[in-house]
Amino acid sequence: MPALTTYRTPVQEDWVDYNGHLRDAFYLLIFSYATDALMERIGLDADSRGQSGNSLFTLEAHINYLHEVKLATEVWVQTQIVGFDRKRLHVYHSLHRAGFDEALAASEQMLLHVDLAGPKSSPFAERSVELLQGLLAEQQDLPAPAFTGRVIGLPAKA
Amino acid sequence: MPALTTYRTPVQEDWVDYNGHLRDAFYLLIFSYATDALMERIGLDADSRGQSGNSLFTLEAHINYLHEVKLATEVWVQTQIVGFDRKRLHVYHSLHRAGFDEALAASEQMLLHVDLAGPKSSPFAERSVELLQGLLAEQQDLPAPAFTGRVIGLPAKA
Repeated sequence: MPALTTYRTPVQEDWVDYNGHLRDAFYLLIFSYATDALMERIGLDADSRGQSGNSLFTLEAHINYLHEVKLATEVWVQTQIVGFDRKRLHVYHSLHRAGFDEALAASEQMLLHVDLAGPKSSPFAERSVELLQGLLAEQQDLPAPAFTGRVIGLPAKA
Repeated sequence: MPALTTYRTPVQEDWVDYNGHLRDAFYLLIFSYATDALMERIGLDADSRGQSGNSLFTLEAHINYLHEVKLATEVWVQTQIVGFDRKRLHVYHSLHRAGFDEALAASEQMLLHVDLAGPKSSPFAERSVELLQGLLAEQQDLPAPAFTGRVIGLPAKA
């Protein structure tokens, strides 16, 4: 079972700097669209037109920039479910392009399940829990994500 | 000495979701513009029109989302220099609005000084080091940043 591909896009003109390279914030925008796509797979809706009345809010995101990405490059996001509890979902997104084995960037995120009527945090519906358990089971043989559990800091001086 | 304000903007229409709330990636875009502004203060140029030939690349960013922010709200970024070495700069950005004491979001980032001719990592110029030392000295009495050294994870089960 390969990793789940959640989103695919060419790098757009609005997303690059004067050098034609993807700007740091737009890596995260691509991962944000991948989270929207993941929501659809677990019975949530990425926008207000849906019926679930629930959504995922990002509590915290860590992102590692590994390689530059140029304008118009076709990229895709692979998503692993790291874990979840009653209200929280821990995911790992990585960014890829054809012809290059390494990930271009990686992002570990903690998401909160929210009832939009509040908005307030609320437990996942039973159907979402089943779908999440299904994804987790499908992904159990994937290698562990490379960029998780990270703390930012300068190396200690010798 | 108050914290350094590096960037100020109203929340723009392109940055909000269907609910009129700032989308997660655009908090990081605002922090990215704040890093551009910081570059100008330490003798670097945020775009290719400048003369330094050097820039800062983001290696890693951690971001905590603390409060929702609505369309058109005027927000600003305060920036603290956490530390630096020959080639790396560790910064802390926080997002604020008038009439609200808490930060709206916070982001700890590790940046790399890069010679754009390579591009390859390169030591800060003497002038940049002096300017960084000046900022660090001005900020020594600021409270320690609240959201640093963080690891993402679900709480252990009881």
